[in-house]
Amino acid sequence: MRETYREQLESVTSDLVIMAQIVRGAVRDSTRALLQADDAIAERVISGDEELDRMSEEVEHRCFSLLSLQAPVAGELRIVVSALRMAAELARMGDLAVHVAKVARLRYPDIAVPESLRGNFERMASISEQMVETAGRTLQSRDVEMAEQLQHNDEEMDDLRRSQFRLMLGDSWTHGVEAAVDCALLGRYYERISDHAVSMGARVVYLVTGEAPAGASHWP
Amino acid sequence: MRETYREQLESVTSDLVIMAQIVRGAVRDSTRALLQADDAIAERVISGDEELDRMSEEVEHRCFSLLSLQAPVAGELRIVVSALRMAAELARMGDLAVHVAKVARLRYPDIAVPESLRGNFERMASISEQMVETAGRTLQSRDVEMAEQLQHNDEEMDDLRRSQFRLMLGDSWTHGVEAAVDCALLGRYYERISDHAVSMGARVVYLVTGEAPAGASHWP
Repeated sequence: MRETYREQLESVTSDLVIMAQIVRGAVRDSTRALLQADDAIAERVISGDEELDRMSEEVEHRCFSLLSLQAPVAGELRIVVSALRMAAELARMGDLAVHVAKVARLRYPDIAVPESLRGNFERMASISEQMVETAGRTLQSRDVEMAEQLQHNDEEMDDLRRSQFRLMLGDSWTHGVEAAVDCALLGRYYERISDHAVSMGARVVYLVTGEAPAGASHWP
Repeated sequence: MRETYREQLESVTSDLVIMAQIVRGAVRDSTRALLQADDAIAERVISGDEELDRMSEEVEHRCFSLLSLQAPVAGELRIVVSALRMAAELARMGDLAVHVAKVARLRYPDIAVPESLRGNFERMASISEQMVETAGRTLQSRDVEMAEQLQHNDEEMDDLRRSQFRLMLGDSWTHGVEAAVDCALLGRYYERISDHAVSMGARVVYLVTGEAPAGASHWP
């Protein structure tokens, strides 16, 4: 049975929403692998990433075929153009969760994050996970206000990152170079996941209103 | 004077080629700022990034207008869809050069990279710069063979990155946590710049042949 034009457009969006749910799960699982030194969960995140890559390619093909056969304009063209970008971003967010899982696997059975930074990473991971969920939900609901709020979560991420550096570079850091290098990169991975969630929020504002949101001089 | 359809398509490509040249300059300058502790050059890279963001948005608008008014198909649609992705990647590569420049600025008048890693970073930066140049040239020439070669440069980047970690985590590292954290993140930035150049190469193969290149299971 051939899908109608509208069904095709809707399935692009619903695939992206499913991708956001998978990414959210990958962020949650990679954090569990990291903070509980759980090798099996790390493996699951790493092997599960293929599915996200496959879905991202499928969304891209579907968008290409919509552009080619339906020549959408105005709001519908914005949906397709935004979907191309969001599919790439969601695949990238999945890669970043894989990076977290790989650090967990590398240090197993030790825990890569020292006790003194555990709370910081728990909070960072929880915000990232929540931001991915919000990005997915705003995409589904087209809620511009919720999409714009994603920018605020990002500020707390910046604060957490600054705290990490203060601790790692302070005199009380007794965990050596390896733990500091791990935590610097891990912090970077979570920060990038949240950057992409902010960028998805900006895309939702654009696809609904046709305008880039205030403060989004460019989208990471 | 109104541009013809063909002129519009060509100016999308030529804008991307110019963006690649600007990114190449930003990579070169940020490396100079980093390895010579040159504050003025660091500032120039940081303030110059706006231009790349502006160009990226302009390419996106132009692509949107091409899709909307001309409804390109087949090879021409591939050009426009690839251009949307490449404009975002080039803006991102510029951001990464800014990250390098910011580390240089933060440590000024000191040099963030210890002498023992200087050669490694010189090589890494030189490969990144060259890969950006190749990505721009393949885009202009549509040379599929050259685009595919970008994957090989990437392997040397991986080797250089492994050497960095060996040195930083080895017993002979006497530069402390701060220098190690700086170098881990700097290495990551250069690595990501080269990843994006590989991805641009893959896009060129796709826009010429209509097929993803072998080994590019997905594009970073």
